[in-house]
This record gives sequence, C-alpha cells and structure tokens, in this order.
Amino acid sequence: MAEEVSNKQVVLKNYVSGFPKESDMEIKKSSIKLKLPEGSSEAVLVKNLYLSCDPYMRNRMSKMEGSYVESFIPGSPIVGYGVARVLDSTHSNFNKGDLLWGFTGWEEYSIITATQGLIKIQHTDVPLSYYTGILGMPGMTAYAGFFEVCSPKKGERVFISAASGAVGQLVGQFAKLFGCYVVGSAGSKEKIDLLKNKFGFDEAFNYKEEQDLDAALKRYFPEGIDIYFENVGGKMLDAVLLNMRLHGRIAVCGMISQYNLDQNEGVHNLFCLITKRIRMEGFLVFDYYHLYPKFLEVILPQIKEGKVVYVEDIAEGLENAPSALIGLFSGRNTGKQLVVVAPE
Amino acid sequence: MAEEVSNKQVVLKNYVSGFPKESDMEIKKSSIKLKLPEGSSEAVLVKNLYLSCDPYMRNRMSKMEGSYVESFIPGSPIVGYGVARVLDSTHSNFNKGDLLWGFTGWEEYSIITATQGLIKIQHTDVPLSYYTGILGMPGMTAYAGFFEVCSPKKGERVFISAASGAVGQLVGQFAKLFGCYVVGSAGSKEKIDLLKNKFGFDEAFNYKEEQDLDAALKRYFPEGIDIYFENVGGKMLDAVLLNMRLHGRIAVCGMISQYNLDQNEGVHNLFCLITKRIRMEGFLVFDYYHLYPKFLEVILPQIKEGKVVYVEDIAEGLENAPSALIGLFSGRNTGKQLVVVAPE
Repeated sequence: MAEEVSNKQVVLKNYVSGFPKESDMEIKKSSIKLKLPEGSSEAVLVKNLYLSCDPYMRNRMSKMEGSYVESFIPGSPIVGYGVARVLDSTHSNFNKGDLLWGFTGWEEYSIITATQGLIKIQHTDVPLSYYTGILGMPGMTAYAGFFEVCSPKKGERVFISAASGAVGQLVGQFAKLFGCYVVGSAGSKEKIDLLKNKFGFDEAFNYKEEQDLDAALKRYFPEGIDIYFENVGGKMLDAVLLNMRLHGRIAVCGMISQYNLDQNEGVHNLFCLITKRIRMEGFLVFDYYHLYPKFLEVILPQIKEGKVVYVEDIAEGLENAPSALIGLFSGRNTGKQLVVVAPE
Repeated sequence: MAEEVSNKQVVLKNYVSGFPKESDMEIKKSSIKLKLPEGSSEAVLVKNLYLSCDPYMRNRMSKMEGSYVESFIPGSPIVGYGVARVLDSTHSNFNKGDLLWGFTGWEEYSIITATQGLIKIQHTDVPLSYYTGILGMPGMTAYAGFFEVCSPKKGERVFISAASGAVGQLVGQFAKLFGCYVVGSAGSKEKIDLLKNKFGFDEAFNYKEEQDLDAALKRYFPEGIDIYFENVGGKMLDAVLLNMRLHGRIAVCGMISQYNLDQNEGVHNLFCLITKRIRMEGFLVFDYYHLYPKFLEVILPQIKEGKVVYVEDIAEGLENAPSALIGLFSGRNTGKQLVVVAPE
C-alpha cells in the first residue's frame, strides 16, 4: 500500500478582476497517495521544491477565452513553473529520484500528466532554485528576447524597464557582456543600487521619483535609445517611443503595469514607429525553447565564473505563496520572486 | 536677356494646428526669369507639370523640430513631390527638355538646388502624372512596404486601411497578384466599389458605416489577419490588434486619422503584440529608393498589360491645389490626389 500524506495546496477561489488580493487564493488541505494510480501512462508524481512567481500568471487568474495561456480553474491548485523531485514515474524520460523543472501545481505533491514541457535537470552544481529563474523560463526569456528579438549590435544603447526583475536583471547583464551601454528603471532605491552595483548597469533610475519620464530618458540617453526591452507598458512605453533612435528595436516581453487595469492605458506616440522606422516585436519564450540547450552551454560557465549573477527573493512555505505572487504587482519583490516549498 | 514670366505660387501663410483649412494657404503672384542665374551650379530650373498631394505633408505644415521631414517655411511656396520639365540646367544629370520627378515647389516654375532626390523620367509611354503616384513615391512605398516590410507569404490574409488611396490601392493589387486574400477599408460607397470591382480586392467595407470595427474585421477575417498595412492609426489599429493572427506583421506606413489631432488617440491593445507575437514595424520610403530601378522593371510591364491599374483624382490648376491637399484629411479624394499645373 502506498503511503498517503497530507498535501497542502494553494487554490484560486474565484476569477479575479482588478488588482489581485491574497484572499483571492486560499490554502487548502488535501491528501495524496505517494504512488501514481494504476494505469497511469506518461505521468509523473513529484514532490514540489520551488515554485516560481511570474507576472504572466496574473492573466491566468482571470477568465479568458482563446488566450495564449489557459485560465486557472477556480477550486483547483494554481499552476506555474516549478522545480520538483520525481517520486514515481510512468514516463520513459523520467525516473524516480530525477529532478525536473516545468509546469507543476502550487501544492506539496503533484501528479503531472501534461509532461511535454518538463525538462530534466542535469546540472546540480548550481542552486536548484535557479531553475525557476536564470536557468528556467525567465533566463530563456531574457536570452531569446535580447539576442533573437532585439538584434543587438555592440555599442548600442539599451534601456530595460522592470530591470531588477527575474528577466530584466539578466537582459542588462547580457547586454553589458555584449558591449552595450545599459540603463535600467525600477521602483526602489534598493533596486537601483542593485542595478548599478551588483548587475553592472551603466545607469539606473527610480521611475517613481521621476515627474517626467521623457526628461529622465533624455538625461540617460541624450542621443536616444537603440533597444528597449519592454516589461511594463503604458506611460513608460510612451516616453520611450519619443526617445528611440532611427531603426531602433523594441522587444515587447511584458506590460506588468497594465495587468490589473480594467482597460489598458492608451499609448499615444506610436507615430514615432514611422518617423524613426522602429521595429516593435512581441515575443513569447515558448517559441524559443529549442535554444535551451545552447543557452545552458552559454550561461552555466558564466554563472560559475561569476560573470553573471542572479538575485532571488525567496518566500518560505506554501502559506506565503499567495502574498509572494501578489507582491509582484506592487513591485514588492527585489529580484526573482520564488517560493520554497521543501528545501532539499 | 531671359524672358521673365509670371509665376503663381501656393504659399503657406502660417504654421497650422488642428485641421488645416484652405485659408492656411494663399495663391501669390510672383515672377521668374526662365534662366538659371549666373553662377548656379548643380541646379535645375523647371516648369512644374503635376504636383502630388500626400498625407505626410500635413506634418510639414506644423512647426516641428528634429522631425523626419522639415517644416514648410511660412511665406514660401509649399514643397512636395511633382513631375516637371527641365527648362535650364547646370546639373550634369539633367538637360534642357528632360522630364523628372522629385521634390519641387508648388508654383508654376521652380529653381531646384536640392537636386539629390530628383529622378529623370525615362519611360514616357505611360501617363506622366503616374510619376506622382504609381511610378513615384506612393508606388515605391506600396512596393517596399508590402514586399520588404510585411514579409508576405502566398495565401496569407491581408488587411489594408485607406485602401483606395495612393498607396493602399497598390498594396491591395500587389497582394492579390502575390496570391493573398485581401480586404480593404475606405470611407465611401464609391471607394468600396472601386476596391471590389476595379482593384480586385476580395472584400471591402466602409468603416464609417461600422458601429464596431472589431466585429467588422471578424466578419471578413474569421480566422484573423496575417498582415495589416496600416495607413490610418487610432481606433482601427486597436481593432486590428484584436484580430491579428499568431506571428502577424503590421507595416506602419501612415496614421492619417491622427495628423490633425492635438494629441494622438491612445492605442489600448498593444498587449496583443506579445500574446500573438506580432511584429509591428514603421517604415519610410526614403530607405528603399535603391530598389526603384527594380520596382520599375516589375511595375511598368504590369501597367502595360493591365495587371495593375491606378485611379487618380485630378485637380485642375494651382488655384485648386490648397483645396485638393486639404481634401485628403476628410477623405474627399477618390484615388491618388494630384494637381495638374500645366498639362503637356
């Protein structure tokens, strides 16, 4: 007989409109047998170790049809990227004891049947939590977004919003290593310090302290911006458009300032796309996972040699997961926000 | 002694804000000697035959600094594309009697010293007025915009706004010849009839008769839009963003709906750029004139074989030029708007 254990879960109570609250989620106690049911095929039973809090998850908290991601199911555990240990497997790629990262449930133990996105972790001489960040979806997003979408050239002027976040901190470091001039914006003194002193950005500014974003950008980019890595949308995008250089590129990765609004803010300066011949391109990391092996080859040595660093903001325990997730939307986290469910 | 003749001119009185009016311009009588002054070098004296009315000229009627085009000079003749006959030349590329097209003055005779953009007309077995349209800047814009910016694939679904205009009518015909499904929008029954019956668009609709642009687009593109050739901006762009397909492309050629507004309308649906991985790219024809000889090789036979047709809206005489120019912004013209100054 398989052992039956308690299984704490973070459940979405109802679809959310506007700003999400901790009370939109609840901690539910359930139980689970630590063995896959008879007849399971191509499934894994995992113990969740680390869960990733990512801005795109806000969209899954609302009822949406035909979107690029599926809505969460009220009453069921939230789903997100995580790092987990395989306890039982009927999938030929995974054996008991393996570590993996990919979509799992916000709970202590999960049975994963949608296994196609799961990736076996082969390198464990780095912190395992990195597979929610620098070695996971955000890392791949930064790499593909910067190198594949931005078409950077050495010496170009790069601006990154939400620059200390899970993706932004890496884009800035990649751009510096590549030989660009790099400026980031973020929302606290602590974050600005990180950008300048830890991640090596040339300059950084606190957008909350700027009356006039256009003027702030002109201060740091007197000759304009070649590449904008867009994480926030809204007013910042409008100010950036005014400051782009001829033939500039805008990689649209996220628009976190808009996710909790009933209607998105209007962007008024799109005519600049014409006069400056700007390419503005949205992308999703899903289209670039074929580059993951190549990415690991590049990034693992860079981590080990200290050429790239990564700052995490770690919440302890599933009970603190709702608050950690919601904190993303007020910018409470400093660095990549994740939750430790069970440290190994 | 050179003959001195009268030289009617269309002069901008003052910089314009808001919607331009005929009274922002005036007809001025001047005189000119039909010989270049002694010591002129690299200049041509021309008799203007046809003048082009183009939407981008609205921007030149306002005072702007550091823009992609220079503002007109109040008190001086308006400058724009035109077709002209050379009366005198000190430029090695042009001889007396040559025909050319490029930037000239809105007047009967012009001395052109900024000759670098002038192109000698070699093919006169087509209407000369075509060099203000299909064989001039708008034609080159349509060609470069569609083939170079839109990256079209056979069978793709193409939407064009301001589709019966100088550029739109050509983009639609190029897309049809290329094997695309093509729908256009315009602002009158007459224009819709042209789109469907003369230019061979698959479908067309009058945007002024649509309560809900999103619904209209869904009617003609139940599976979404692969390519949007953007000429208008504002609400139409917002509706199109909702209806783009994955990996769609938006070539931003113009935003005529916005040119007379004090502040541009806000565009709210840019998040679609991410979820649908859309590339939105502004362009200016100036970057593509190196393709002009190749373009002529393609388009001249197509015109002669009747594979591509072109509809012009011709105003007679310089006196009617201000009204013709302003008519663009209320959509009064049907087809390419131009002015005959002196028919040859």
